[in-house]
Amino acid sequence: MRIGIVGGGQLGRMLGLAGIPLGLEFVFLDPGDEPPASAVGDIIPAPFDDREALELLAKRCDILTYEFENVDVDSLQAAAADSAPVFPTPRALATAQDRKSEKLAFEAAGIPVAPWRAVASHEELRDAGRTLGLPLVVKTRRFGYDGKGQYRIQDPSDVDAAWAALGGVPLLAERFVEFEREVSALGVRGGDGSLAAYPLTENVHRGGILHTSRAPLDDVELQAQADRCLRALTDELDYRGTIAIEFFVVAGQLYGNEFAPRVHNSGHWTIEGAVCSQFENHLRAICGVPLGACRPRGHAGMVNLVGTMPPVASLLELPDVHLHDYHKEARPGRKLGHVTGVAASPGERDRIIDRIETLLA
Amino acid sequence: MRIGIVGGGQLGRMLGLAGIPLGLEFVFLDPGDEPPASAVGDIIPAPFDDREALELLAKRCDILTYEFENVDVDSLQAAAADSAPVFPTPRALATAQDRKSEKLAFEAAGIPVAPWRAVASHEELRDAGRTLGLPLVVKTRRFGYDGKGQYRIQDPSDVDAAWAALGGVPLLAERFVEFEREVSALGVRGGDGSLAAYPLTENVHRGGILHTSRAPLDDVELQAQADRCLRALTDELDYRGTIAIEFFVVAGQLYGNEFAPRVHNSGHWTIEGAVCSQFENHLRAICGVPLGACRPRGHAGMVNLVGTMPPVASLLELPDVHLHDYHKEARPGRKLGHVTGVAASPGERDRIIDRIETLLA
Repeated sequence: MRIGIVGGGQLGRMLGLAGIPLGLEFVFLDPGDEPPASAVGDIIPAPFDDREALELLAKRCDILTYEFENVDVDSLQAAAADSAPVFPTPRALATAQDRKSEKLAFEAAGIPVAPWRAVASHEELRDAGRTLGLPLVVKTRRFGYDGKGQYRIQDPSDVDAAWAALGGVPLLAERFVEFEREVSALGVRGGDGSLAAYPLTENVHRGGILHTSRAPLDDVELQAQADRCLRALTDELDYRGTIAIEFFVVAGQLYGNEFAPRVHNSGHWTIEGAVCSQFENHLRAICGVPLGACRPRGHAGMVNLVGTMPPVASLLELPDVHLHDYHKEARPGRKLGHVTGVAASPGERDRIIDRIETLLA
Repeated sequence: MRIGIVGGGQLGRMLGLAGIPLGLEFVFLDPGDEPPASAVGDIIPAPFDDREALELLAKRCDILTYEFENVDVDSLQAAAADSAPVFPTPRALATAQDRKSEKLAFEAAGIPVAPWRAVASHEELRDAGRTLGLPLVVKTRRFGYDGKGQYRIQDPSDVDAAWAALGGVPLLAERFVEFEREVSALGVRGGDGSLAAYPLTENVHRGGILHTSRAPLDDVELQAQADRCLRALTDELDYRGTIAIEFFVVAGQLYGNEFAPRVHNSGHWTIEGAVCSQFENHLRAICGVPLGACRPRGHAGMVNLVGTMPPVASLLELPDVHLHDYHKEARPGRKLGHVTGVAASPGERDRIIDRIETLLA
């Protein structure tokens, strides 16, 4: 079976690495020069909105999926039309592409969210500050990632600067959440509606980019909330594939921040740290075969390698550490790889993370 | 760094899958049409003894290795000469290619072997039967694999048939070992002479082809013998890379049968069942970076898929089971894939193997 993937970055690369042992073949659509996924499949070199290229991808493949979220949903749907089904469904993709529809989906699924409203003008933004209360986070409704397209309003006097920075496109304003921790719920929903959920992952961001993930987060009550949210949201969206919901934790309660209709950086630890990885499970789901177990194998910690790669030998010298080099050109703020350590206890796992961080300092 | 691999079969495929996350790139020399490794690197389509193709491989790559043993050592060495080092060294390859030099290497390393002698004529074969005692196993000295090129002499009257079947090429006769079990010692020796050894693996063959492997074999005394053998043989050969020594066990004693100067089928369980797989460790060794831990992660069982592939969905339905489909055309006696299960106890592992075998029946 041949899988067509829109996007040939590191997520595509890791999908390929997970799928080749299942006997799958891969074709990626990506505009980049030798993108990371070129190591594991053919590349159709074209922009993501190239309708003809999308049609070619659909014709060459049995099933389409995406690892990049900002593809035009109508083009994707039209291109795939008679050739290959698209999973997760274009509806899930469209929902995730717009922060307003994302919040509405959370609400429809009964997932608590911070007070929010859509904002279309300078005046509405000022209003939002008054109605929702400060501090406020303002985000572009579309095309934001890794903290880009966001502005924090601390004080009423920041409204003008926020509008100057982001205004002119549809925005969403939400009350800033004084969170105690950030966690993500990763799960996979199969073609038959069955759901498998990974243990909760605790994430730390730096400069808007994921820095570390730790799993499992042993908290029975939060896990139960997360499982309910995964079940409700994926049912609501008639979802198929791996999904990641990012939450804020406040006083023992999860608040939905955003979700990604794809494999997610905060689930990279599942490659070595769970029985079946988020990548393999995504492929199992879209291919309609039984899902694999999401059970953790020990205590995993993941550290992103951003901007520069430390010397490989120094990373590999650390016991129980696994390197994932995305084969990308170094550039400030760019995710170049990640490192995962798996240990028998949370304390040991944290010591591995400390040792990795020492190398990055 | 670009690794050139002679042979593009499933071992090459799994080397590629292990090496891509390390940032390595791969080129394979293989005469087949879309060989298994084509999913993970470029293929130079040529016979293994094509000197020009070997030279091209060496020129395109930084380091050469092999996953196929019957390549001509002189051609490989000459082709690599000024372009790229070859690991494991051609000396180790040459030693493994000839059952006589293999036995001599075992003896030089102090590894016990069954009584044997090289045989060049019908008369010498008859003699061997008298001197070594029956039953006797006769093997071609070169180009044997998966039980091919072997004949068992039970009775003096079998000598003529054995000679008729195998005679005309150099042979080796050895006393048949009434073994209690077959085990293999897998290890990896780094560029600095450091050695890492996996726990002993117990193997069951069917029709000369590996059927199942189980690890770890918990036997402190046998493990100590295996570790000594690995240390002595790899030092003797100035080895670099992953090596597999196959042993017979008789009354608590290991007897060396043969060794493979490469990653080995009986080590496939290490992908999910050990911290660092035999494939990644082979690459770490030949690239000269620190070796990974060989520690087991639970109790692993591997079952080869030979001749026909069972329905994928039925395999994936088994919990904690990992499929490795080599993407090969089905043919009787051909290794098409393998399945690995990892469990918390040997008993649970054996139940997973039973369930897999039920599917194959």
